[in-house]
Amino acid sequence: MSKIDAKLAELGLTLPEAIKVPEGMVLPFSWVRVRGNRAYASGHIALDPDGSVAQTLGKVGADVSQEQGYEAARLTGLAMLGSLRRELGDLDRITAWLRVFGMVNTAPDYKSYPLVINGFSDLIISVFGQDIGDHSRSAVGLAGLPFGTPVEIEAEVEIAD
Amino acid sequence: MSKIDAKLAELGLTLPEAIKVPEGMVLPFSWVRVRGNRAYASGHIALDPDGSVAQTLGKVGADVSQEQGYEAARLTGLAMLGSLRRELGDLDRITAWLRVFGMVNTAPDYKSYPLVINGFSDLIISVFGQDIGDHSRSAVGLAGLPFGTPVEIEAEVEIAD
Amino acid sequence: MSKIDAKLAELGLTLPEAIKVPEGMVLPFSWVRVRGNRAYASGHIALDPDGSVAQTLGKVGADVSQEQGYEAARLTGLAMLGSLRRELGDLDRITAWLRVFGMVNTAPDYKSYPLVINGFSDLIISVFGQDIGDHSRSAVGLAGLPFGTPVEIEAEVEIAD
Repeated sequence: MSKIDAKLAELGLTLPEAIKVPEGMVLPFSWVRVRGNRAYASGHIALDPDGSVAQTLGKVGADVSQEQGYEAARLTGLAMLGSLRRELGDLDRITAWLRVFGMVNTAPDYKSYPLVINGFSDLIISVFGQDIGDHSRSAVGLAGLPFGTPVEIEAEVEIAD
Repeated sequence: MSKIDAKLAELGLTLPEAIKVPEGMVLPFSWVRVRGNRAYASGHIALDPDGSVAQTLGKVGADVSQEQGYEAARLTGLAMLGSLRRELGDLDRITAWLRVFGMVNTAPDYKSYPLVINGFSDLIISVFGQDIGDHSRSAVGLAGLPFGTPVEIEAEVEIAD
Repeated sequence: MSKIDAKLAELGLTLPEAIKVPEGMVLPFSWVRVRGNRAYASGHIALDPDGSVAQTLGKVGADVSQEQGYEAARLTGLAMLGSLRRELGDLDRITAWLRVFGMVNTAPDYKSYPLVINGFSDLIISVFGQDIGDHSRSAVGLAGLPFGTPVEIEAEVEIAD
């Protein structure tokens, strides 16, 4: 068994199905693009276990609380791990997280984006450990995100062949 | 003749001149930065054939319709291909599109950013084919973009020496 | 003495201490992530010399003038150079700036983001010279940034072993 799969099981975490794109929407790109020793993860969002868009929607600081934002970021991480596992075959191939770009759908006066995106960073470090899971990061406020999702995150990771 | 130039001709596409930066604005960076097997494309916007900033300006979902936004994303792709051809000499040197970051200048309640940025993705895949043209992508709503342009897109591509 | 340190001294520039994260905020990631020939700099903001968050806060075009925004971008560059020097040991290890993503906390009608982010680009080119300091860049308007900082910038650079 993959070490990361074992760690996910130990933590009681399951990864959602691939996103069910709403009918009529065509997305002509890949959720993960792999070349050489890099995998580029597209902007991911929080999903329900069956791949449906999670229905905690709206702006953090207004419709969505900071705690709900943190949970959305955590679910976004699980969705990204699902995409990475489907593309890479085995999450043990990830040798280093490199760059995490955390986007928060923000109410006008909300500012604590880092505390929201921590939901993603905490997950990645708990699953991969500090050495592999560490990453550079930005956590910033967007004017809008697709579907009105509260959080969207893209990332770049180093992989072994 | 370059294969990609032949494909552009077949599709009836011409690439615009380099951007004419408005008088008084100095931009101390390159539109494409090349190192090793990577080319990093700066944030590009839609241009008229002579390199002037296209005058479909404003926020998608208010001043600019989704269809106009799609067309702006397509024109942004042509402008980026122009920059890449000027820098690389030959677009056939691009061996893989890797990362596309699509930014939409958004009206407060607009959300369908993916349908706008599809104007860029559809162009890239039609010109480069699925294998080379595929990419990771985010499509998100910005609070503002330079000149009030409706779309700005940056990208990273893999190149051959 | 490092060539870049000598250049900083010649220009009369000093780099601030590492950011003093406000009490109660945990940031579980690195300011610079190094792997192979790449260093990824997290989103940085303007700091006072002791590492405190600079207190020119608010939205460019409203609370913060364009000139103050330019200065914030310059200070953001100094903060990023401080992080890079702490992580790399020697700024001479930077062989090329690659990608700069400049985010401006924007008032509703402000658009001149490139003129703000020039504060960062001008600094980098004056310190590293054109060949190493050149970079790809985006300069865009965000709906909000942590602490209400007017500018946040992330970057990717090429490094020698």
